[in-house]
Amino acid sequence: MIDSIGYAGFDATSPLKVFEFSRREVGDFDVLIEIKYCGVCHSDIHTVRNEWGGAKYPLVPGHEIIGLVQKVGSQVTKYQVGSVVGVGCMVGSCGHCSNCSDNLEQFCHQGATYTYNSLEADGNMTKGGYSTNIVVHEKFVLKIPENLDLAAAAPLLCAGITTYSPLKHWKIKAGDKVGVIGLGGLGHMAVKLARSFGATVVLFTTSIQKKADALKMGAHEVVFSKEPSEMKKHRDSFDFIIDTVSAPHDVNAYMALLKNEKTLCMLGVSPKPHQIASSSLFWGRKNLSGSLIGGIAETQEMLDYCAKNNISCDIELIPIQAINEAYERVLKSDVKYRFVIDMQSLDSEMIK
Amino acid sequence: MIDSIGYAGFDATSPLKVFEFSRREVGDFDVLIEIKYCGVCHSDIHTVRNEWGGAKYPLVPGHEIIGLVQKVGSQVTKYQVGSVVGVGCMVGSCGHCSNCSDNLEQFCHQGATYTYNSLEADGNMTKGGYSTNIVVHEKFVLKIPENLDLAAAAPLLCAGITTYSPLKHWKIKAGDKVGVIGLGGLGHMAVKLARSFGATVVLFTTSIQKKADALKMGAHEVVFSKEPSEMKKHRDSFDFIIDTVSAPHDVNAYMALLKNEKTLCMLGVSPKPHQIASSSLFWGRKNLSGSLIGGIAETQEMLDYCAKNNISCDIELIPIQAINEAYERVLKSDVKYRFVIDMQSLDSEMIK
Repeated sequence: MIDSIGYAGFDATSPLKVFEFSRREVGDFDVLIEIKYCGVCHSDIHTVRNEWGGAKYPLVPGHEIIGLVQKVGSQVTKYQVGSVVGVGCMVGSCGHCSNCSDNLEQFCHQGATYTYNSLEADGNMTKGGYSTNIVVHEKFVLKIPENLDLAAAAPLLCAGITTYSPLKHWKIKAGDKVGVIGLGGLGHMAVKLARSFGATVVLFTTSIQKKADALKMGAHEVVFSKEPSEMKKHRDSFDFIIDTVSAPHDVNAYMALLKNEKTLCMLGVSPKPHQIASSSLFWGRKNLSGSLIGGIAETQEMLDYCAKNNISCDIELIPIQAINEAYERVLKSDVKYRFVIDMQSLDSEMIK
Repeated sequence: MIDSIGYAGFDATSPLKVFEFSRREVGDFDVLIEIKYCGVCHSDIHTVRNEWGGAKYPLVPGHEIIGLVQKVGSQVTKYQVGSVVGVGCMVGSCGHCSNCSDNLEQFCHQGATYTYNSLEADGNMTKGGYSTNIVVHEKFVLKIPENLDLAAAAPLLCAGITTYSPLKHWKIKAGDKVGVIGLGGLGHMAVKLARSFGATVVLFTTSIQKKADALKMGAHEVVFSKEPSEMKKHRDSFDFIIDTVSAPHDVNAYMALLKNEKTLCMLGVSPKPHQIASSSLFWGRKNLSGSLIGGIAETQEMLDYCAKNNISCDIELIPIQAINEAYERVLKSDVKYRFVIDMQSLDSEMIK
């Protein structure tokens, strides 16, 4: 077994704290990764606080992982000791269902094995990237291109692929008008990526003080979404809208802004159902859809695309000891625009 | 002015009763139609009972109209006295917005003029087909092909086009698996039309006693939707689902039955918003959409298609004096499968 140390939640309400545990031995197809950086995703908070149900404690969150390969199994071909690699939201899937065969492991019919709080074949729960190391099957390990800043690349593994995948799937191209709702971890990547695809990008926000940042990231226009007259100007004009907001909000107001037959794609996972008026659907045959991260092959494609186009995340680097404060700030949308944990900060915990 | 007599609602709760009123003179582009038959649509009930708001009384419902041309305006070119014609849900639109230009008058940006309870240019409210005659601009008058039974063709003007349009729009073709939720006026037409398009048709119903009828109409299979194990068998298998139910129901249960990236199309207009779980949208990137009747050109196409393929509605012919009882039966889904009013029954009212 491999010793690991990380930060874990021990119940739905207490702060995360230090937790020592073991990882499985490095199997034939496994890679042992020394974790350098791990992004802080809103999903980490939802899960550790059991807001989606099913939390098993101690629960080590973290699925935006960047590190160095420390050891490889005998059958590993893709990586060597020292390779710079990443791990995203998934560490396994059945590999043979129709969705796995289509490189859509996120929709595995058996259920993908998520990077944390997911049952592994050996009966243990997976433990995520708020820790010193992780053991992952090479198939679920991503190659990090050389020119990416490692800390700023970490959130690409979730926020990056989650926004890249729908832009690709709905074939966003130069000249399309794309709306992005919310400028958080997902939203700021959606703005950068949509802009890089050649789209005209409009950011919708309730925090108008984010306007300057959004413009700098590539938005052509920022709309204060609480102002009906501002919203009305954009009626029937969008080719695609990405909704990154997980809190309850009026989706109907945005459906009205789509052109006929176009799609609003929900990325936020709301614990409560969305309230959708019939008229939002039948008027102009508009579509409401959604997207969930992306497959492993597409995640690699996204990393390569970001490296080529110099796209990475705007981050605030924090020591792991600041994680509980960081959670509170995420909940207040007070982060520009993703916290990333510098895992060196765990060294001091090991000395204790 | 042209004298007319019909049945009207006088408030949201009282039974419909006889009402004498005037129609506008026949303008240069108008057609005066002697109404022979008029279908009874669930929308008539919603509107006359003010369940959608905005009802102006006296309110003469009816938008599935078949009749004979009695008089034509000086500029009318499409019809002559004696032509067999139909009128559906719309009698006007702006004619120059982008949707009107695309033959999508139902989405006119100025708002289409509906056949009843809609404000006309002259300041009067339109009055529908539960009446002896109607005056309509020739552009909104449909030609009824010769071989259609006139009474059974009446509901094509709403139920027919409302189900034909989405099947065409989503390009349903031979071999597709199509679900139809509900076997009412819309549902029974959706079954017949989807079958005629070559699809494998599965009807979902809460009234299992409708099974034999559904099979006779062309359904390959009937699923009792209250039985979870029956539903589960169809997971991830549909290319398209048409939802004809306007009462609140669990749309999420049906979203789960779609293949990846396929569409559930809502036709029912629910006064309450649909409750849509995030997971229904992001899992498999499925689409929730809707459709609203169809444009005038497409309505003519549908009538010609139905004539060519011997498709019409299953109806119960009633005298107008039975309309209030018929409404109660519609609300109990106790109609096979559309009431059509024989307008000859109004003659006795005129003698009074």
